[in-house]
Amino acid sequence: MDFTVRPIAVVSSPRDDLSDDAWGAVRSTITLLPPLGVDAVAGLEAFSHIEVVFVFDRVDPDAVCTGSRHPRGNERWPAVGILAQRAKDRPNRIGVTVCRLVAVEGATLVVEGLDAVEGTPVLDIKPYLPEFAPRGDVRRPAWAAELMEQYF
Amino acid sequence: MDFTVRPIAVVSSPRDDLSDDAWGAVRSTITLLPPLGVDAVAGLEAFSHIEVVFVFDRVDPDAVCTGSRHPRGNERWPAVGILAQRAKDRPNRIGVTVCRLVAVEGATLVVEGLDAVEGTPVLDIKPYLPEFAPRGDVRRPAWAAELMEQYF
Repeated sequence: MDFTVRPIAVVSSPRDDLSDDAWGAVRSTITLLPPLGVDAVAGLEAFSHIEVVFVFDRVDPDAVCTGSRHPRGNERWPAVGILAQRAKDRPNRIGVTVCRLVAVEGATLVVEGLDAVEGTPVLDIKPYLPEFAPRGDVRRPAWAAELMEQYF
Repeated sequence: MDFTVRPIAVVSSPRDDLSDDAWGAVRSTITLLPPLGVDAVAGLEAFSHIEVVFVFDRVDPDAVCTGSRHPRGNERWPAVGILAQRAKDRPNRIGVTVCRLVAVEGATLVVEGLDAVEGTPVLDIKPYLPEFAPRGDVRRPAWAAELMEQYF
């Protein structure tokens, strides 16, 4: 029932702290690990954005939340389930973020706006397709809008 | 360097075939597995859409592509890297899709537009936040637009 996953790439980022905000202008790189190489990203430069699936590997697996809590520990916001927030200390510790693809340089991707710190292991990279955007109107609670105000 | 991940939920879908198109109107359910329960999805109903991270578990790990190939084997489209397409036979076999959250019924989520077949293991569920949409204009090659025409 368990699955073993192996990083296909690693992030190099100027950000080495787990602070919560201001990721929008961060420029970082993602370098493929063998056996993946330039063939795996052939044609990727035709896409403006990629979706990066990564592991919050600095989170202690024993610290993962499986129930509910206040986002960022802020009691002004309601306690909600861990699956109703995008916090890093979540089951399986997986992050997913769309970021801008600035350049493809051999087996290294230069990206902007990736909220992953130095050394983050990457499990997958997908091209962003606008058809995968939400179909229909998007609704979210007020606390989530407030939390995200300074994020990117 | 490897990570072990454990499904937190399972998909029940009327779709049991791995065909490529017409997922938009498919209604399916996602049922949490212990230790996750209703606490983990408290407050999730305030979001219109969720992002589902799942495993393409019907793909033989030995059949995974690590280089480049024609999307869907269609030679009218250029051979591109596996990371420049969203095909299921990819390293780590992880899928990520945003779908509409129709209802939360206890530990079961009713969703619409999830492109995962019956029995698919789910690794994570995140609320969709519009701030996580692409920042800046989106660009993608013509073949990708054509491939997606009938997908949802």
